[in-house]
Amino acid sequence: MSVLIVGSTALDSIKTPRAENPRLLGGSASHAAVAASFFSPVQLVGVVGGDFPRRYLALYKRRRIDLEALQILPGKTFHWSGEYESNMNHRRTLLTELGVFETFTPTLPKSHQAARYVLLANIAPGLQHHVLDQMQRPKFVAADTMDLWLNIALPELLKLLKRLDAFVLNDSEAHQLTKEENVFAALKKIHKLGPKYVIIKKGSHGSILSGPRGSFICPAYPLRKVVDPTGAGDSFVGGMMGYLATAKGSVEDNIRRAMIYGSVVASFCCEGFGLTRTTKINRSHINQRAKELEKLTRF
Amino acid sequence: MSVLIVGSTALDSIKTPRAENPRLLGGSASHAAVAASFFSPVQLVGVVGGDFPRRYLALYKRRRIDLEALQILPGKTFHWSGEYESNMNHRRTLLTELGVFETFTPTLPKSHQAARYVLLANIAPGLQHHVLDQMQRPKFVAADTMDLWLNIALPELLKLLKRLDAFVLNDSEAHQLTKEENVFAALKKIHKLGPKYVIIKKGSHGSILSGPRGSFICPAYPLRKVVDPTGAGDSFVGGMMGYLATAKGSVEDNIRRAMIYGSVVASFCCEGFGLTRTTKINRSHINQRAKELEKLTRF
Repeated sequence: MSVLIVGSTALDSIKTPRAENPRLLGGSASHAAVAASFFSPVQLVGVVGGDFPRRYLALYKRRRIDLEALQILPGKTFHWSGEYESNMNHRRTLLTELGVFETFTPTLPKSHQAARYVLLANIAPGLQHHVLDQMQRPKFVAADTMDLWLNIALPELLKLLKRLDAFVLNDSEAHQLTKEENVFAALKKIHKLGPKYVIIKKGSHGSILSGPRGSFICPAYPLRKVVDPTGAGDSFVGGMMGYLATAKGSVEDNIRRAMIYGSVVASFCCEGFGLTRTTKINRSHINQRAKELEKLTRF
Repeated sequence: MSVLIVGSTALDSIKTPRAENPRLLGGSASHAAVAASFFSPVQLVGVVGGDFPRRYLALYKRRRIDLEALQILPGKTFHWSGEYESNMNHRRTLLTELGVFETFTPTLPKSHQAARYVLLANIAPGLQHHVLDQMQRPKFVAADTMDLWLNIALPELLKLLKRLDAFVLNDSEAHQLTKEENVFAALKKIHKLGPKYVIIKKGSHGSILSGPRGSFICPAYPLRKVVDPTGAGDSFVGGMMGYLATAKGSVEDNIRRAMIYGSVVASFCCEGFGLTRTTKINRSHINQRAKELEKLTRF
């Protein structure tokens, strides 16, 4: 089955202590869609401007991502620019130009409204609602978010939580949302806001799932060098949803392994700027690292 | 087989945002010895002053810890006082009174010199060397340390690394020692300093082993509430060494499971001030959490 993914489709200019890369293909939906595409067909919902490089459209197409719901509008593509500190754990935003995103209203074609797996990747909660409103009978809906929406759109985000099967956020966002320092205390509080599955991402420390069959401690794949972590969280949730959409059996049966695959795709994402590394791998590279993760955690 | 453990035997006065507890039984060797005692006989090497409460001696004895090499000298017991911030990840030392530790020279009785498993818990590297010098033919020697020794006794610590089978340190110490932000890059550098096994502790994020058969990502047991993390790292390494000393098979076969057991004892340690919680559990509580950790990491 295919995954419908809505989120930002952007140009990212990224600075690290070692290099600077302008106008890479970025955005939560780009990372999530490429990650999901290793496992299942993907329907991308987003918007870009007239300045969006053709080679990035070609990249989506090479990954067989359905672009019917990618609007190309006159104006500028959403442009984000950020800088990482040497430990890669802290970044600061240098610039955000919304461009065509300012007036974006996602409208889904009929073929998209029937999607069973829906990923509301990081984007304004209002847009996440708007997409969900158009879905006919989704089987599994997951959403990601960011600190910005907790700051400026909390009421809408809280409403969204009641409509989700799974909510994915990082540890600092979980702290911001719940005021809990402790990840496990935060998980419990977030369940009470609605979602059956809650996943807290902890960067290089992996992620934690809390669900009906208990918790799962999902490791991050060990990397000796992180080139650019931008999009790692989006790759994680994209890979997870792609795996879930095609795996046999119930979500509950598959979600742990889905997180492992998401974690693996995120590891590749970190090894290059933007999507440069992720677009060079194939399913067998992913399977190899998933096997390694199995060995790395067995006792 | 028994484990010989040298380290600090102290009184800890601990302040958290919620409570204050003066003169608890503390010190790296106390925590490590109690943790190890769930798995194997323990020979404790340390020093206390005339002010050391009898009830703490009774506590060691209840855990059947051999006190032949615990010196009781005129003067004051080593006293440490510290305060935790609300997230329990940052603490600051309020006071350190060395007392009888100032002139401590550990002298091992014959019966102790034959120990096969030796844990040089956190203490000045000079004392760790001094104990190791007296051992006849130890089979497995592990050492822990702290930032203080990296600051004021680095040459002695570096010499010690060449005499160890396993070196255990936390992530910020690993960064301080290697200047590497990345844990896996740090592990590689530390191997080059001598130890066959290197373990980096990451608090609530678990720990990472690097050894001849590859790496192991060891989870921390999920706790919703941490009362006092003092001694958790000592409990981890103590539990690990206790398990190794009695498990059948090679160290390489057992070290992953040993870390799991260490991690479990550390989780109990965090649930009470000082050793109050750890001394209320038994082996079946430990086995239960080890089983849970197995379920929490399987996929």
